[in-house]
Amino acid sequence: MSLVVVGSVAYDGVETPHGKVDRMLGGACTYISLSASYFTPVKIVAVVGEDFASEDTELLASRGIDLAGLERVPGKTFFWAGVYSQDMNDRTTLQTDLNVFATFDPKLPEAYKEQPYLLLGNIQPGLQHNVRQQMKGPRLTGGDTMNYWINDFRGELLETIRHWDFLLINDSEARLLSGLNHIGQAAKKILEMGPKVLIIKRGEYGAMLFHRAGHFAIPGYLLEQLRDPTGAGDCFAGGFMGYLAEQGVDPSAGKLDARLLGRAVVYGSVMGSFCCEEFGVERFRTLSRQEIDRRFEEFRHFTAF
Amino acid sequence: MSLVVVGSVAYDGVETPHGKVDRMLGGACTYISLSASYFTPVKIVAVVGEDFASEDTELLASRGIDLAGLERVPGKTFFWAGVYSQDMNDRTTLQTDLNVFATFDPKLPEAYKEQPYLLLGNIQPGLQHNVRQQMKGPRLTGGDTMNYWINDFRGELLETIRHWDFLLINDSEARLLSGLNHIGQAAKKILEMGPKVLIIKRGEYGAMLFHRAGHFAIPGYLLEQLRDPTGAGDCFAGGFMGYLAEQGVDPSAGKLDARLLGRAVVYGSVMGSFCCEEFGVERFRTLSRQEIDRRFEEFRHFTAF
Repeated sequence: MSLVVVGSVAYDGVETPHGKVDRMLGGACTYISLSASYFTPVKIVAVVGEDFASEDTELLASRGIDLAGLERVPGKTFFWAGVYSQDMNDRTTLQTDLNVFATFDPKLPEAYKEQPYLLLGNIQPGLQHNVRQQMKGPRLTGGDTMNYWINDFRGELLETIRHWDFLLINDSEARLLSGLNHIGQAAKKILEMGPKVLIIKRGEYGAMLFHRAGHFAIPGYLLEQLRDPTGAGDCFAGGFMGYLAEQGVDPSAGKLDARLLGRAVVYGSVMGSFCCEEFGVERFRTLSRQEIDRRFEEFRHFTAF
Repeated sequence: MSLVVVGSVAYDGVETPHGKVDRMLGGACTYISLSASYFTPVKIVAVVGEDFASEDTELLASRGIDLAGLERVPGKTFFWAGVYSQDMNDRTTLQTDLNVFATFDPKLPEAYKEQPYLLLGNIQPGLQHNVRQQMKGPRLTGGDTMNYWINDFRGELLETIRHWDFLLINDSEARLLSGLNHIGQAAKKILEMGPKVLIIKRGEYGAMLFHRAGHFAIPGYLLEQLRDPTGAGDCFAGGFMGYLAEQGVDPSAGKLDARLLGRAVVYGSVMGSFCCEEFGVERFRTLSRQEIDRRFEEFRHFTAF
């Protein structure tokens, strides 16, 4: 009973007002799977090059992540570099070397296909769709996307998300996808595109969740120190889906109530907040489930009235 | 047992993407007192000119607001005009005619001085201080300010807020006042300046409240339609303070717990949200306490997990 995660496993170069790292483990699949691994067994589908370090494989394995679908091919691993603005609300991409990721053609190991949960990280929508087609009817499918796919691969994206249970995007992506500025109206229109649930990530301002019967909202966690926001959205997705998988959610059996979805949003927020505390995936080297549950209780405390 | 409110009573010209009104009742004191009047008796201190319309006096009186401190002097009423951006997150001032407000020297009627609650709308900090000095030791004093006073009247402002129980400002004002970008650190520094409680209004993103023992946060209300945000912050202040007055809060008797402050923030958010539904003060012509309490319960519902 695992969660299958597809997406990029990469090396990142990141500069924020708190420091600079030239090369460190990153990528959507990496962040999602590390985050989700605190809740449920995870199996990843991704590609890396010959330069992928054994210590990075070991970090993923140490969290019990199944690497049977991590393909290693000739060439170099996907590399991305970017620099954040002073307030860390904006970032500029300095370098994107797709390398082996350019020809990524995800193939699921047989043992993956029967799994009930599927999280499609931000990759080309056609590949996301292809992965879902390889699965034998997952209980719950969710995924992420970005402005590039919304603008330039719109038809393919719409055909892809039509089959999803939930879509996780940010404010501006929701506005872009719907063509509507009002976030409630944007959400309503996106739910008509297929997904049963829409989660809108708002960074420091928290997150909202929309479903057909209503919505849920939570403010952001007030971090003592935000060192590097890279991967926070993916960690949110991993926490959200990881918690639903842990709870054995099965929408076909009616086990997807609003209270559970709200808690999943809070666990997503908790995981996103931990991610920002250190550069890259550093925080996951020491993070414990106990710390996660403690922060979940903090959310209860600072939102109670 | 009333709330004394000081601030501007004005005429506003407002243009938003939803319409344009050349001249309508406005001003911080107006919005605060209309909002607070749903919770507690209100007495206002303000100045208007000979052009102030009797129908506007009647609107305030219809909400039971005591107008003994509303001075009418020769000249014209304060006039402000502005236009909002397409997403209504920014506005440009087109005209500011201080008129009779330029020489406003608030004098409290005797019956005001014994009242337990004081809310100082956004006016020159020296005048705010002067009003507080005229009161015979109110139980609870709170107020608002803005970037102009923070930048150009810093010394006077610091001397003024030193005596306040709470300060209500927005994100950017908190950063400007503290000189710190991190909102938690900014709040900590501001609490060292005197106020026991700091409320940070974040518009569509909700509000936060900081006190020495912790903080509270709430997301914004998702309005069906935002027509005119003018006065929303003042209505927030009126709802916040009005609720505390209704509850008979007395910090000297220890009656100011975190749960009560959280509820006051939610009532503030409720009142700010109603204000935005119509141009100017229009919404307050029909708004009922029942609608207010229903929206308070909506907040409980969409934040529950």
